[in-house]
Amino acid sequence: MEESYLRRAISLACENVAAGGGPFGAVIVRGGAVLAEGVNRVTALCDPTAHAEVTAIRAAGQALATHDLSGCTIFASCEPCPMCLGAILWARLDRVIYAATRADASAAGFDDAAFYAELSKPPAARRTPVEQALAAEGLAPLLAWRQFSAKVPY
Amino acid sequence: MEESYLRRAISLACENVAAGGGPFGAVIVRGGAVLAEGVNRVTALCDPTAHAEVTAIRAAGQALATHDLSGCTIFASCEPCPMCLGAILWARLDRVIYAATRADASAAGFDDAAFYAELSKPPAARRTPVEQALAAEGLAPLLAWRQFSAKVPY
Repeated sequence: MEESYLRRAISLACENVAAGGGPFGAVIVRGGAVLAEGVNRVTALCDPTAHAEVTAIRAAGQALATHDLSGCTIFASCEPCPMCLGAILWARLDRVIYAATRADASAAGFDDAAFYAELSKPPAARRTPVEQALAAEGLAPLLAWRQFSAKVPY
Repeated sequence: MEESYLRRAISLACENVAAGGGPFGAVIVRGGAVLAEGVNRVTALCDPTAHAEVTAIRAAGQALATHDLSGCTIFASCEPCPMCLGAILWARLDRVIYAATRADASAAGFDDAAFYAELSKPPAARRTPVEQALAAEGLAPLLAWRQFSAKVPY
């Protein structure tokens, strides 16, 4: 049964190539039912965050009317990149099942493996410079959050 | 001048707390002009990916009608989490300047630092299980992409 969801993600990825999009698909399942599907729409939408997993997560959030997708599993045609894995963690998904690897994606010209390496470096060693400034002023919103009694945690 | 953009990101973050959202803001700048702004809208939109940086990146992509934001700098009220740093890399932003740190965010109850630790682990050691299946079938969309002559790289 689980293989059928993964095959659906792979099938969506193949269809998306034929439609001019990136070769990635994802399916989110809860309790034996498909909640949401997604394909890569980066170039179609001019949205660098529109990976298949992110697209599926956003659709699942709409379907359930919550940002919390605990209890759900995501099936992805390829190993999630760091952005998508971060999104999966924030969404509190229970499990990830993928088919192709980050190395397979690299062989097809994608930067997933390079970006995993980049994230594991200290900020100063990254190829994209990441610098800090106004450290003390930056605490103000976090302090406001801590003191705001009506906040909605996530 | 750069400090003014960072102060704007911090100000957006403070305003967003008062509006019931998360304590994060971001501003994307190109050639001395603000292209896009974003605040955390995770709970407002039921979208776990709607961090301030992602929201600003998506708006900048719309403003420029491209997924490629090279030449732009992002100013963030807090150090980007792994999801947002991944989005920044995919968007090809030139630089990141932030104020509060992942440790400051942790002290306010957010999982940024924990998620950085999680991403640096091998998949089998993560608290969210990440498993592979159908490895050979998963190559099909990537092979289709490599063979598709009309593809739009990103």
